[in-house]
Amino acid sequence: MSRKVRVRKATMSITVVGSVAYDTIETTSGKRERCLGGAATYFSLSASFFTDVRVIAVVGEDFGKRQEAVFAARNIDTRGIEHTAGKSFLAGSYLDNLNEAKTEVTDLNVFASFEPRIPAAYSDSEFLFLANIDPVLQRRVREAMPGVKLVAGDTMNYWIKDHKPALLEVLKGLDILLINDTETKMLAGNSNFVQAAHSVLAMGPKTLVVKHGEYGATLFSTAAEASTFKSPALLLDEVIDPTGAGDSFAGGFFGYLASQPEQTPAAYRRAMFYGTVMGSFACERFGTERIQALTRQEIDARFHQLRELTHLD
Amino acid sequence: MSRKVRVRKATMSITVVGSVAYDTIETTSGKRERCLGGAATYFSLSASFFTDVRVIAVVGEDFGKRQEAVFAARNIDTRGIEHTAGKSFLAGSYLDNLNEAKTEVTDLNVFASFEPRIPAAYSDSEFLFLANIDPVLQRRVREAMPGVKLVAGDTMNYWIKDHKPALLEVLKGLDILLINDTETKMLAGNSNFVQAAHSVLAMGPKTLVVKHGEYGATLFSTAAEASTFKSPALLLDEVIDPTGAGDSFAGGFFGYLASQPEQTPAAYRRAMFYGTVMGSFACERFGTERIQALTRQEIDARFHQLRELTHLD
Repeated sequence: MSRKVRVRKATMSITVVGSVAYDTIETTSGKRERCLGGAATYFSLSASFFTDVRVIAVVGEDFGKRQEAVFAARNIDTRGIEHTAGKSFLAGSYLDNLNEAKTEVTDLNVFASFEPRIPAAYSDSEFLFLANIDPVLQRRVREAMPGVKLVAGDTMNYWIKDHKPALLEVLKGLDILLINDTETKMLAGNSNFVQAAHSVLAMGPKTLVVKHGEYGATLFSTAAEASTFKSPALLLDEVIDPTGAGDSFAGGFFGYLASQPEQTPAAYRRAMFYGTVMGSFACERFGTERIQALTRQEIDARFHQLRELTHLD
Repeated sequence: MSRKVRVRKATMSITVVGSVAYDTIETTSGKRERCLGGAATYFSLSASFFTDVRVIAVVGEDFGKRQEAVFAARNIDTRGIEHTAGKSFLAGSYLDNLNEAKTEVTDLNVFASFEPRIPAAYSDSEFLFLANIDPVLQRRVREAMPGVKLVAGDTMNYWIKDHKPALLEVLKGLDILLINDTETKMLAGNSNFVQAAHSVLAMGPKTLVVKHGEYGATLFSTAAEASTFKSPALLLDEVIDPTGAGDSFAGGFFGYLASQPEQTPAAYRRAMFYGTVMGSFACERFGTERIQALTRQEIDARFHQLRELTHLD
């Protein structure tokens, strides 16, 4: 596929490492078998509306031209997606409470022996996103890309609970951590949200973005207290499928930041809005359907809608 | 007490009918026996920072000079508080989830036979707040004050579940209804929040304010869709006691609206912020302690803090 990839600018590209997978999803709105999914997929598609994106992942023999085409349509560099014998990562989830995704069945398949390899062509990426994978791998990728300017990452309850020492090493090297309420409290071992957020900041990340599902997101920073920022979520008439909403948020947030000449506090605030906007689109259809079909015009229209919804004047 | 009440302007006063009571409160931060409480108390104290307030309620022989002094200190007109034989309304609550108050024990006492009487001096009030009481009484007060310009009200799950026909009559005559997420869904019989909100608007209120506890509040309006507005909550390092936060929100919201020469969409937006601010103060100490000790300077400082927390520029 690499022949089809256009020549990119040397700067403003994000490299993302994470899962490219299949999801079987059941929500109150219906069921879909084996949708294209995975954190790196949602992140890449979402971020691709703002900047160049390069993916590092592993897939099996069941990942073919149709799946490649989804990335190619958004001009995402997939030279870092390793194709190997076996089946791709498969996750099954049932979601009745639409605020938090519950993965119920997981077949790691080729992901079980994933050894991220970074193409030479990715080495000039200035932005790195470590999606939710084994912190040992997150750290390895981070160390293999010493030249990056800004590193953001995600994690989940499983790594917090059973792989905390490795995770703490990753946190030390993060500029931005994006997790949800429950993960924040679990990581800090403190049920008070604000206290927990400050404890997490003390673990290394300069910025913490806590996602609250239908209630928006909050940004905390080790900079001045005044830089704390809240974005409520948009009002959706119907939430079809929240799978990937968090990764789409991360893609919008980090993609927008990477597109800016400087990562100022004002840029972080706008990034929160773009993250919220991308997360809201993700929920409107199953899997990546809505994100695939988006235009930048729709994104900006919704950004202004969010501004209208939250601003006094 | 009426001799101590200063002469008031004929306009811009709110009459509120509701409970003036005692609360025994236990939260994760501690316990307080027989605090001064009740929806009309929290509402009045909060609204008194913005406009003149007049209360209609009933109390027993256990309500004396110390309690009167709390209202007098905020220049609240208590001529409509009827003193009768027996004990005041007493509520006991234990709150471990700080998002929603759970009243566990209720002794209606003198409140069981409450027949609101409206002092002649209240009849020129242009604003009326019907706090959470029997909808039959809410309606009676509403009909006895035909000259009011704007009527807001509250209710709770008990009235929605077991007294719906009477409640629906009240809703027809409301300009503004303030309830929480659960009540909105219960009233509409719809678990989808946005759909539920629009169903409730169809029942009569021109404006619906839904309170989300630590996640802020959302305003819906029968005016243009563009008037929908979200205020996140302020970040509190510690929530000591959320009792009365909803009524304090209502007091800030409606008090601010009543203080404005015109109730424009922009005024409603600012009112959402003032409501949020007053609700946040209420949580900082047990009962009405924090609200009693407030200054308008502190309120305006926090209003600007909320603006900082939510605005892009």
